[in-house]
Amino acid sequence: MTLSTAFTALFGVEHPIALAPMGGSAGGELAAAVSRGGGLGLLGAGGGDPDWLARELPIVAGAGRPWGVGFLTWAVGTAVIEQALEYDPAAVMFSFGDPGPYVERVRAAGAAVIVQVTDLDEAGQAVDLGADVIVAQGTESGGHGSRHGRSTLPFVPVVVDLAEDVPVLAAGGIADGRGVAAVLALGAAGAVIGTRFQATAEALVDPSTAKALVDGRGQDTERNRVLDIARNSPWPSKYTARTLGHPYLDLWRGREEELAADPAAARRAYRTDVESGNVPALPVWAGEGVDLVTDLPPAADLVATLAAEAGQALARAGRG
Amino acid sequence: MTLSTAFTALFGVEHPIALAPMGGSAGGELAAAVSRGGGLGLLGAGGGDPDWLARELPIVAGAGRPWGVGFLTWAVGTAVIEQALEYDPAAVMFSFGDPGPYVERVRAAGAAVIVQVTDLDEAGQAVDLGADVIVAQGTESGGHGSRHGRSTLPFVPVVVDLAEDVPVLAAGGIADGRGVAAVLALGAAGAVIGTRFQATAEALVDPSTAKALVDGRGQDTERNRVLDIARNSPWPSKYTARTLGHPYLDLWRGREEELAADPAAARRAYRTDVESGNVPALPVWAGEGVDLVTDLPPAADLVATLAAEAGQALARAGRG
Repeated sequence: MTLSTAFTALFGVEHPIALAPMGGSAGGELAAAVSRGGGLGLLGAGGGDPDWLARELPIVAGAGRPWGVGFLTWAVGTAVIEQALEYDPAAVMFSFGDPGPYVERVRAAGAAVIVQVTDLDEAGQAVDLGADVIVAQGTESGGHGSRHGRSTLPFVPVVVDLAEDVPVLAAGGIADGRGVAAVLALGAAGAVIGTRFQATAEALVDPSTAKALVDGRGQDTERNRVLDIARNSPWPSKYTARTLGHPYLDLWRGREEELAADPAAARRAYRTDVESGNVPALPVWAGEGVDLVTDLPPAADLVATLAAEAGQALARAGRG
Repeated sequence: MTLSTAFTALFGVEHPIALAPMGGSAGGELAAAVSRGGGLGLLGAGGGDPDWLARELPIVAGAGRPWGVGFLTWAVGTAVIEQALEYDPAAVMFSFGDPGPYVERVRAAGAAVIVQVTDLDEAGQAVDLGADVIVAQGTESGGHGSRHGRSTLPFVPVVVDLAEDVPVLAAGGIADGRGVAAVLALGAAGAVIGTRFQATAEALVDPSTAKALVDGRGQDTERNRVLDIARNSPWPSKYTARTLGHPYLDLWRGREEELAADPAAARRAYRTDVESGNVPALPVWAGEGVDLVTDLPPAADLVATLAAEAGQALARAGRG
């Protein structure tokens, strides 16, 4: 069964599956592979490093399939958005912050505006801005999200009702075809998938990160700001990140305010620990769906598998 | 489309929908109405008050349809289980604690053993105990649950894989037919629904609670132990409860340890505030799905509506 939705129709893609634009790890090869597999590959451009974009944009644009690019709204600027638009993306996705200043420019370039939201207030703002697609992100998701996150299952249908005719994608906790099927049943037009694609042949991650994702369990993930503070990350304090376990979480769990108030010593210790190899260079961002990650397939094959499993799950549901 | 699953086959019910056995509010009339509507009504017996059971058991048993009774495992004893078994329930559900001491007795009486779990360790224990049905409860659920709760969407498929041939029901965040459809797509054999049934004509709740559920928003719910501590509830400290907002949450949010260490003054103040009407007599337990609660229908009609909506959601998913 081929799954068709407002999302597949809007972008002319085969499957209702999008790559979460994970900053740094969703590079050109991974986004291109997802697009070649029939999904929508979204480059994870973060705040937008011009050199990184100059390297990765030609790779995804060269695949000759619909693709897009995702930015961190609080960190991005017009120059890097213009740089991306030169490659003619089908979509530009904005996450975490007010995309208002950029919407008109993106649409004028012929790209769809995708806005990721974490609560109903943000969803209403996205509708008012005229977003072409809204991504409802649940707290299960790996990496950054709202401190007061909603869970995907009850959050998505409420955003669908609020968004009316605007297609809604679901993000957070989706790591196999059953999850894709479930969010379609909730009324979503597709699934945005991160952690599962982080564990593929094309993801720009260290082999130790890939292994941690295959070995990791959902119950070992937790939302925290400890690691952003310790590594002196510029993420605004309203966002937490879901990661696998880490020695600094054990040190500082429950004492984030204390750490944030006087982080200098912890930051020095963290740098020293990274340099000496006592802690990994980066946190392992991972969503609760990591239980379902058991291998490192090519991403295009994974898209086909997810879509086939989703069709089977829908065909099977409620039929004995 | 009639939805048939291993759950509907096991109990001979029409729809893959069970009433969450909400302590006190899921009384005989509500459980009977759910069973008459084609679901499985589960009486919310809590720790088991013999007088309450003597009043409510004949009501649900008198409906002449499959029904069950749910106990808090940490609070229950053999005597009240025996009292329930005299009425020939189709199922006895155990939540929060080790049901091992009671499994054999329940099965010897011909009732199915349903065990609710909140993490994979508990799920494995339930399989080992020989549970006939496992309920995977997500952190979205209203009322009590695990402090380190998993979200329903990524939790259910992992429990389904672990449980192999044991039917798994999903609980937490399911408040309309789309949610029922979604958990069937995840591989669950049915949905356990609480908050949505709390807002029905038959629920044993104060009208002010029913109104709070209709008016309440998912983002106004939070998991806390503040209210259990303030009202001197015997719930073990490893469980939190999701409730709507409350003045004592604003007073004590983020300071649970301080409150637990010296609760006497707060308990006196709470009693005084309840007696003077400054705070409601009970917290309003509510899950994140409360956004979808907009009316107070008869529960039997609600079962039919949920099942019809679920069938439509599955028929529509991935078809344009």
